[in-house]
Amino acid sequence: MPAAYASEEKRSALVRSAKELLYEQGFAATSLAHVASRAGVPIGNVYYYFKTKESIVEAVIAAHETELRLAFATWSLKHRAPLDRLRCLVRAPLDSPAIIEFGCPHGSLCQELEKLGARTPLATAASRLLSVYLDFAREQFRAGGLSQRQAAANAIELVASLQGTMLLAHTTRSRALLSTQLKRIERWLETALPRRRAS
Amino acid sequence: MPAAYASEEKRSALVRSAKELLYEQGFAATSLAHVASRAGVPIGNVYYYFKTKESIVEAVIAAHETELRLAFATWSLKHRAPLDRLRCLVRAPLDSPAIIEFGCPHGSLCQELEKLGARTPLATAASRLLSVYLDFAREQFRAGGLSQRQAAANAIELVASLQGTMLLAHTTRSRALLSTQLKRIERWLETALPRRRAS
Repeated sequence: MPAAYASEEKRSALVRSAKELLYEQGFAATSLAHVASRAGVPIGNVYYYFKTKESIVEAVIAAHETELRLAFATWSLKHRAPLDRLRCLVRAPLDSPAIIEFGCPHGSLCQELEKLGARTPLATAASRLLSVYLDFAREQFRAGGLSQRQAAANAIELVASLQGTMLLAHTTRSRALLSTQLKRIERWLETALPRRRAS
Repeated sequence: MPAAYASEEKRSALVRSAKELLYEQGFAATSLAHVASRAGVPIGNVYYYFKTKESIVEAVIAAHETELRLAFATWSLKHRAPLDRLRCLVRAPLDSPAIIEFGCPHGSLCQELEKLGARTPLATAASRLLSVYLDFAREQFRAGGLSQRQAAANAIELVASLQGTMLLAHTTRSRALLSTQLKRIERWLETALPRRRAS
């Protein structure tokens, strides 16, 4: 395969391994050597792509952001009604069994990286992930006919509920808690945004 | 002062310093040497009280648990109505400016310690803190006349909303988000548990 392609493949494998390790064991316990070993890339080669742990974590956050935006775009294409798009958001944790074992990959990363210090580059980068959720939710509430103010408040309520629910399901290791509480959030959603055509 | 008293004082000072450091910079960045330095205790003396970082973190979790139970007992003595007791829980984050800078001291600790591995002693100990919240909330909903099942579901909804709200207020550094969203939770509480005398 062409060298440029092989190089891009290797970089992707490293980011994918770093993403898994950050999710499973957190930032503190993850080193570039771990990442190299899981990706099957010699540690000497890793430095060609990432000079520091911080730079690979930035790449992981960027990858999370891209995936989130892709999921949101997919739901928006698949469903015309904002209510149905937000239902996809609420149901998404049910498709990911790892939520029970490791919590929300975005929320837990934010929480841990914030401890590096207010406004450190990694904390700022991670907090962007929750903003991506808030922006998507707010846009859907707006498209559903709510005022800017109501849409913003509902988006905060929705994302906060989802984050707190995933944290509790994780710390109690309870899938029943997750599914029961997500159903309640969905019922709330139906009162907050009655079904109608997207404008 | 008597030696036993001085010894107990020193132990408390160490736990207090560890609690602050865990809150401000997390488990990974905190060492026994940091704790000793902040408490003004020579590092050699620390080992008399705590052999490992893990053992002082366990003491911090126990201190958090005691404080939570004390706060809940105080609210229960002060207010007869379960709704008023739960209002104290919802309003508590407003009295703690550090929530904006560092998040919830209990939720963020749980989230970080869970990354040490499922069912490690520290992860299990930290998850107890969220159970203390859930138990208190469930008891109040029960005392307010809800069924066991409804009370448990409402407790999960309440604690999840509070945890998610503190996370978002922290990552966005927004006190306005915190107070607005807590007011919404309080309005929900009034529909979930109308005012009546505790049974």
